[in-house]
Amino acid sequence: MAIELYWGSGSPFAWRVMLTLEVKGLKYESKLLEFSKGENKAPAYLQLNPRGKVPTLKDGDFVVYESLAIMNYLDRKYPDPPLFGRTAEEAGLIWRAICECESYLIPAGDKVVRPVFFGKGLDKIDEIQQAAETIRHELKTVDGILATGSWLVGRQISAADIAVFPLVQLLLRAASKESAQALNLGLIPLAQTFPNIANWLGRIEALPGYERTYPPHWKS
Amino acid sequence: MAIELYWGSGSPFAWRVMLTLEVKGLKYESKLLEFSKGENKAPAYLQLNPRGKVPTLKDGDFVVYESLAIMNYLDRKYPDPPLFGRTAEEAGLIWRAICECESYLIPAGDKVVRPVFFGKGLDKIDEIQQAAETIRHELKTVDGILATGSWLVGRQISAADIAVFPLVQLLLRAASKESAQALNLGLIPLAQTFPNIANWLGRIEALPGYERTYPPHWKS
Repeated sequence: MAIELYWGSGSPFAWRVMLTLEVKGLKYESKLLEFSKGENKAPAYLQLNPRGKVPTLKDGDFVVYESLAIMNYLDRKYPDPPLFGRTAEEAGLIWRAICECESYLIPAGDKVVRPVFFGKGLDKIDEIQQAAETIRHELKTVDGILATGSWLVGRQISAADIAVFPLVQLLLRAASKESAQALNLGLIPLAQTFPNIANWLGRIEALPGYERTYPPHWKS
Repeated sequence: MAIELYWGSGSPFAWRVMLTLEVKGLKYESKLLEFSKGENKAPAYLQLNPRGKVPTLKDGDFVVYESLAIMNYLDRKYPDPPLFGRTAEEAGLIWRAICECESYLIPAGDKVVRPVFFGKGLDKIDEIQQAAETIRHELKTVDGILATGSWLVGRQISAADIAVFPLVQLLLRAASKESAQALNLGLIPLAQTFPNIANWLGRIEALPGYERTYPPHWKS
């Protein structure tokens, strides 16, 4: 039976899973949910994922959600190429990079992305500036790592690159919005602020199948 | 060379790693850091973990931090018993349970635990009540899962149980504080509110070596 992926355009978490599927060369049936039509809260979808969030993966009879859980499932089920480390040490460092993204970059990113995209809380300048400082600090660390190698951990692309990439893309998209100009986030132009991250983005964008993962509504 | 664990008393994240070490029967050298003395910000420690947080694990020359990353490293390096799933499906469900803890239970827990322990923000009643509602909702789901089995995923203890357990303990400790009484968190007595969780706690507390993991300053 085919793999089915339920996703939403622009969700960085769904993007992670799509990249994982592409890197592993797995075919899947795309189930794009329109949040604006409430498709993620439809009873049939809530049967698969009671939280009504994306992504959710269905592989035959098996259903799993939460992006990192899906990535891990796919890596165990379809281990070529391995994305969570070829050794215990690599596995530890890959998860460290992922956990640091979840614990530091994402919460700070939220405090910038939400006001910029939805307009709510744009007046909380101090909070946004503090979050932007955290984001720059985290990205500086990532940029430093990428100064010494092509990928975040080891010599191949790993789950760390795939997990972090969509969040960086989302931050860049927020930073390029008109409502972000006055905030002086200090994130773009990326080639100047974090040149090694810029090169790394280019490497991921050059992966076969990347185009299929790009959020459709970002194209227009 | 011996495994060294740098930890702090009462850190639920350090507790996860100690439980992992005990379940795997691994000997380790305990390096208890006193936060009140700034030992986690000492230059020698920052060399190991630039964030100055706990836990950090050193195994021979290899150093890794972030609790889930350490747990994953230990599971790959010392696979007996396997804690991250015996099948791809189990691995997916274990990570789903862990991710749900990280994404929902911990952020809500933070909004209750910090005010109760440190007194700051105790006046933000609405925020605390909303967080308490989220916590009860998440724990109700966990309680429902534990109504049908002894462990969160599969038939053995897994990383899901170990990752969630210290957070539940921390919430219970907060709920039992005098400053929490007026908040009506609805978490205790656990045997009445979430009886299956109460039994599950008992199973974990009965594990060999559990006593060694219990936060020393909670004993007094």
